Amino acid sequence: MALIVQKYGGTSVGSVERIKSVAERVARFYREGHQLVVVVSAMSGETNRLVALTQAFSESPNPREVDQVISTGEQVTIGLLAIALEVIGVPAVSFTGWQVPIRTDRVYTKARIESIARERLEAVLQGGKVAIVAGFQGIDADGNVTTLGRGGSDTTAVALAAALGADECQIYTDVDGVYTTDPRVVPEARRLERITFEEMLEMASMGSKVLQIRSVEFAGKYRVRLRVLSSFDEEGKGTLITVEEEAMEQPVISGIAFNRDEAKVTLVGVPDRPGIAYRILGPVAEGNVDVDMIVQNVGHDGTTDFSFTVSKGDLKKTLTILEGVKEELGARAVLGDKGVCKVSVVGVGMRSHPGVAAKMFRTLADEGINIQMISTSEIKISVVIEEKYLELAVRALHRAFGLDAPEV
Amino acid sequence: MALIVQKYGGTSVGSVERIKSVAERVARFYREGHQLVVVVSAMSGETNRLVALTQAFSESPNPREVDQVISTGEQVTIGLLAIALEVIGVPAVSFTGWQVPIRTDRVYTKARIESIARERLEAVLQGGKVAIVAGFQGIDADGNVTTLGRGGSDTTAVALAAALGADECQIYTDVDGVYTTDPRVVPEARRLERITFEEMLEMASMGSKVLQIRSVEFAGKYRVRLRVLSSFDEEGKGTLITVEEEAMEQPVISGIAFNRDEAKVTLVGVPDRPGIAYRILGPVAEGNVDVDMIVQNVGHDGTTDFSFTVSKGDLKKTLTILEGVKEELGARAVLGDKGVCKVSVVGVGMRSHPGVAAKMFRTLADEGINIQMISTSEIKISVVIEEKYLELAVRALHRAFGLDAPEV
Repeated sequence: MALIVQKYGGTSVGSVERIKSVAERVARFYREGHQLVVVVSAMSGETNRLVALTQAFSESPNPREVDQVISTGEQVTIGLLAIALEVIGVPAVSFTGWQVPIRTDRVYTKARIESIARERLEAVLQGGKVAIVAGFQGIDADGNVTTLGRGGSDTTAVALAAALGADECQIYTDVDGVYTTDPRVVPEARRLERITFEEMLEMASMGSKVLQIRSVEFAGKYRVRLRVLSSFDEEGKGTLITVEEEAMEQPVISGIAFNRDEAKVTLVGVPDRPGIAYRILGPVAEGNVDVDMIVQNVGHDGTTDFSFTVSKGDLKKTLTILEGVKEELGARAVLGDKGVCKVSVVGVGMRSHPGVAAKMFRTLADEGINIQMISTSEIKISVVIEEKYLELAVRALHRAFGLDAPEV
Repeated sequence: MALIVQKYGGTSVGSVERIKSVAERVARFYREGHQLVVVVSAMSGETNRLVALTQAFSESPNPREVDQVISTGEQVTIGLLAIALEVIGVPAVSFTGWQVPIRTDRVYTKARIESIARERLEAVLQGGKVAIVAGFQGIDADGNVTTLGRGGSDTTAVALAAALGADECQIYTDVDGVYTTDPRVVPEARRLERITFEEMLEMASMGSKVLQIRSVEFAGKYRVRLRVLSSFDEEGKGTLITVEEEAMEQPVISGIAFNRDEAKVTLVGVPDRPGIAYRILGPVAEGNVDVDMIVQNVGHDGTTDFSFTVSKGDLKKTLTILEGVKEELGARAVLGDKGVCKVSVVGVGMRSHPGVAAKMFRTLADEGINIQMISTSEIKISVVIEEKYLELAVRALHRAFGLDAPEV
């Protein structure tokens, strides 16, 4: 008998029929003797409908009232799932965020969880019932309703699992796990049985978005066993996201991530002196542009080239900002290039296996792909290449690092 | 400067445009310097949609969870109205039932209000803001969400007016007040400027349903000045529902009420002895049939005829029940008649004006209408007549009691 927190997203509870099938799955775990806390999102489309209603009055509606309105989506789902469970003989009690209560800070529309009271939930579990909790929402110290931002239900589930000391937190979604890379690019991509939190973070930030990043960070911090599964697949084991020591034999590379939405910006011939990075990126940040990779080469002649990437949609704005400060910076030129993408190899194994970078670069060279920028972290090596080579690069790397092979 | 509680029903807040126009009206009162507490219902159709969702799983879904689901309708409206008010420069704060809190008993789907905490609302009012409160909902002693039953938002408004000592409680609806009778039957029907609580109760129970009966009882008990107005009419003064002494010169009759949905049941020749009424109506009540008028005549030969009315839809069931106990009762026959209706004259003035009954009966006799049953209360005389005479009777009585005349 285990204590399991399950989370079902909007698609999984998107209709009466789907709620019934979630109830069936919950019932199976219940009948196996497990204690269950089930977190649900709003029915798919419902949060968008509610957000649109609030924006019918103002482009920037009062955020306290936005949260008051949009938190109702999850409240409907918890009641319906409780009803669906009772109908098939499983006693269940639903909880809104304030009924648990899940305490958050006061930042409406993107609040952070501060604490979770266990008493009411534990009483329900000890009474042999399933506890159903509204995801995405909480209550601040003054009794105002708050929401956690898009994808916040994942965070609710992980936080509940941490607070209750659950044996596992299962996130049901419309994919059956985390893959070595995007199967649309590499048909040979395999589902990973395990991945570490750190790898998951690197994969997620690259577009393999199966989980809200905050929930993964949270799970890592509180050592919650997290599993991603498909709510449409009865038998699948999904992917277990776990701490490193739990993984027995670590592959060198767990996956190939990529991001098409990158544009490259280069300042040519900026004076190579302290503070130059800040003087370039300060105005960019003030323009609300998110910068991804940043590369600065060793200079010569007292000048250096400074490159970074932004999303393609931000390129024009970024170039305008930099043209405005070019003279002040003493740069010779500002160049922009939309025709690039980023490809990364990710794996905690590279810490103990030298030569990963060399192998990556040789593989790309063998395919005739030129590398424009390189950036590395402890468990990731990223390169910026011409966008037209993206598929070729991802397939070649997937093969070179042995990810095509059937999983053992 | 007054403290005013306003209540807007589902039709009044049925769309973004209508919510904007409610906001405009609230803003006018606010700018005149009044303190405002605004109670709103769910947008029209929303409660039905939510009820249907809960019933998609079971004909009798768990009532706690039904309340959890259906209470979200009002929560959406309060947030939207608060947003709409802020957009036009009126600061507003929304409150769910539990945020006030409005404490109720534990009877899900038809809870009764037990107490209302004034502190949070008064703080908002003293801060120069409009308080917006979700109608129809509350919270029980264990923190479960409850709802007050259909039309419960009227009760919320009246209860808030009583708790806060409001100067007036204004109920905005889709009619512009209480009429002397149904204008569809008598085109000369007039809007009443005032009506007493007792008269309103007698009128409401007869089908002139502009207000939930419970809210009128509540208003009478706590002496809340209650006004019914149209939310679509800018200038209308509506009808003030008030205690008797406030009304200066009382007309003898305030209105003519009627109910088509009556069927007559007669037990012929039942033994005239103590307990017979109970022995007849006991089985009927157990069958969940609501009985309206009850008439028992003086007996002769040791037997009597016993008549009562039920709704037309309950007639068949009632006859079946009585056939089952006929012999035990010793009745000669059980008769049913669907072709009847009830017409009533209502007015507190009849207490001090004898002759109202005589005038009513003569008026009906002049039209050749036979009276089948008569029942009287302090302020109401009701008769059962053939249904085909309904319009004729109502028009004749409306004229005879001087209600056609233009109001002074």
